[in-house]
Amino acid sequence: MTAEVVRIGVLGCGNVGGALVELVERRRGAIEARTGVRLEITKIAVRDLSRIRPGDIASNLFTNDPEAVVNSPDVDLVVETMGGIEPARSLILTALTNGKPVVTANKALLASHGVELYTAADAASRDLLFEAAVAGGIPIIRPLRESLAGEPITRVMGIVNGTTNFILSQMSESGVGYADALAQAQALGYAEADPTADVEGFDAGAKAAIIASIAFGVSVTADDVYHEGITKVTADDIAVAARLGYVVKLLAIAEHDAATDEVAVRVHPAMVANSHPLATVRDAYNAIFVEGAAVGSLMFYGRGAGGYPTASAVLGDLIDAAVNLGKQAHASLGVFAAPKLRAIDDTRSEYYLPFDVVDRPGVLHAVTGVFARHDVSIRTAEQHGLGADARLVFITHDAREADVQATLRDLADLDVVRRIGGVLRVVDV
Amino acid sequence: MTAEVVRIGVLGCGNVGGALVELVERRRGAIEARTGVRLEITKIAVRDLSRIRPGDIASNLFTNDPEAVVNSPDVDLVVETMGGIEPARSLILTALTNGKPVVTANKALLASHGVELYTAADAASRDLLFEAAVAGGIPIIRPLRESLAGEPITRVMGIVNGTTNFILSQMSESGVGYADALAQAQALGYAEADPTADVEGFDAGAKAAIIASIAFGVSVTADDVYHEGITKVTADDIAVAARLGYVVKLLAIAEHDAATDEVAVRVHPAMVANSHPLATVRDAYNAIFVEGAAVGSLMFYGRGAGGYPTASAVLGDLIDAAVNLGKQAHASLGVFAAPKLRAIDDTRSEYYLPFDVVDRPGVLHAVTGVFARHDVSIRTAEQHGLGADARLVFITHDAREADVQATLRDLADLDVVRRIGGVLRVVDV
Repeated sequence: MTAEVVRIGVLGCGNVGGALVELVERRRGAIEARTGVRLEITKIAVRDLSRIRPGDIASNLFTNDPEAVVNSPDVDLVVETMGGIEPARSLILTALTNGKPVVTANKALLASHGVELYTAADAASRDLLFEAAVAGGIPIIRPLRESLAGEPITRVMGIVNGTTNFILSQMSESGVGYADALAQAQALGYAEADPTADVEGFDAGAKAAIIASIAFGVSVTADDVYHEGITKVTADDIAVAARLGYVVKLLAIAEHDAATDEVAVRVHPAMVANSHPLATVRDAYNAIFVEGAAVGSLMFYGRGAGGYPTASAVLGDLIDAAVNLGKQAHASLGVFAAPKLRAIDDTRSEYYLPFDVVDRPGVLHAVTGVFARHDVSIRTAEQHGLGADARLVFITHDAREADVQATLRDLADLDVVRRIGGVLRVVDV
Repeated sequence: MTAEVVRIGVLGCGNVGGALVELVERRRGAIEARTGVRLEITKIAVRDLSRIRPGDIASNLFTNDPEAVVNSPDVDLVVETMGGIEPARSLILTALTNGKPVVTANKALLASHGVELYTAADAASRDLLFEAAVAGGIPIIRPLRESLAGEPITRVMGIVNGTTNFILSQMSESGVGYADALAQAQALGYAEADPTADVEGFDAGAKAAIIASIAFGVSVTADDVYHEGITKVTADDIAVAARLGYVVKLLAIAEHDAATDEVAVRVHPAMVANSHPLATVRDAYNAIFVEGAAVGSLMFYGRGAGGYPTASAVLGDLIDAAVNLGKQAHASLGVFAAPKLRAIDDTRSEYYLPFDVVDRPGVLHAVTGVFARHDVSIRTAEQHGLGADARLVFITHDAREADVQATLRDLADLDVVRRIGGVLRVVDV
């Protein structure tokens, strides 16, 4: 059997692109033996031609003109690992129009322009594959698209940001505060100098948008995702959670309510019961918990970032797209409806609410009156002294977000309430 | 867009087949909206036509002639959920020869005749999909075949038998012995009246053979898999393990040594460190831990059995095969080489070795002399009194199986050794 050669153009040769080029070189023989397809990298677009590249890649493969890659007659298939919205978006659209399948790891692009690109790929009858865009090396997009194609997914709940999971794991295991844990994450290269995108939940929100779109067949963008970060989580919150049998995790949650056809997508820290499989996901690991009507609960766990794990996911897609191209087949992405988005105010959860109050008679009565007025029922209450003040911690029964927010506003108006801490949703089961 | 109709013949309408027929009926509209393919069940072969079937399936769909299903011009695609080797094997081969893709959940068949069937499917250019054959609703075959196609897998280690995991979880959490836990599993329907296939590791061995074949591209059958069951695991072993920071699990392990190209596949109980993701898999849940060179560690977790979870996996395959059929495409299973099997004697591990000895001076010296003679190095030793006897528990450093077995044989010959308990391998990290 003569191998079929598929010529690949790579856009971007950074952390992921560089690892991919290396993996293709190293695994070429094994892939050919297994699939009959020989992968040849014919062009690599980089920003700066003067930077030295790893390995022994022939220097005549490099170009600083990405347009030349997506328009080249010597490129059958395009891998995009440059990141950012433009020019990545235009380059991918051009590649598809030119009949070249595309593999991308570009989370930000798919979270903002995913459905435009999915539609363009189907119109061109070409593959657009993006396993690496969510949770690095963990196979989650393909299982959602294919293995669970017949399954009405009710909820996807994930730890999809390694930086924040590392910070929260450090706080939980060493008892350090947020600032110290962040500094540690920065020192180890897990967090960037400006950690905003991670710690404020933007990164997790983008992944949640992609997951929701694929899981529910609707068009959700990052702007549709409500998010709260982890900067208000204190060592004290984590200690209280531990005492009650919980760990604190930043969760990306996408829910579909079959009764109303509403979709709710949000990112926020949550207290996760120790018995929940997500509670055991430590350090920079990621995991995605999927609930379906027939299949029950599934979890997918692994390294959510890093050059090699991400490049491994890109390579899996690349092989799939290359094999499909030889058969002139492609995996359709299907139809994406406009979602009926449920506002965060209308979501429901149990809530952990910490606040400091003046320690004097009648305070608990005043505080609980506010809860009763807004129909928020208290499941657990803890009070302990704190000098002249007391720390109150409540966990509510299932309550509506808007009612909890109204409760918090009224509590802030009480002069016996000194300070309201960060709110955490509670995930049991 | 007019829907393309794909007509399905189902072989077997038991637990899984019945749930599948129900799911197809319930999800038909959603699947058509998403994929443009309309699934119609046109024939269902059952053993006994007089048994009442669930739901409102038209009775004229039923036949007791499975040959008529795989030869019918009114059937485009065959789903096999009847189980057993024959006639399932012949029926699947006939269906493929007739150009009908096949979806099967038949673990025993694939573990004994998998490569024959994979080869027949590729020769017929038709899909043979079998996600449901291993670990029920958990997507593991598709990720191994596609997402990890470019990844050299070094090891797959799974809890793939729900019955034994339930029994071991009960022993671990309630402190009951093996017999009581088994009785409980039987009362709850998790274990059969004759539990041999589960508790002796045959079921896990069949799954390990399929996993090894797909992960490493070699032809491994159930007969190639070494297996030990859980019947020798005692409440005492589990208590000692817990004290040392471990839980006892029945593991199916498939390893590939890139240096020698050897494959080792085995099933045995093991002490798994509490910090390992597999340690947290409780009750009847399954999980499969995959290690690859670039991707690092992955884990796939969910319900490994049950009608609906398994039928959900069958339905995912069914949709995939139906969509592929419309495009005259199929997913090639690739080439399966004959494996270089590593004998169990040549595998290496750390070992937990419990035995009862006479409690008198010089015994420990005599016992440790046997270990030294066979080059088995002791990492941890515990001794505690037991009436006139003492219980000795050793954990070894990494050692060769043959050396450990020779050590155990010589120990049995010492007259101070009363009884040698069940050996457990130790899984750290």
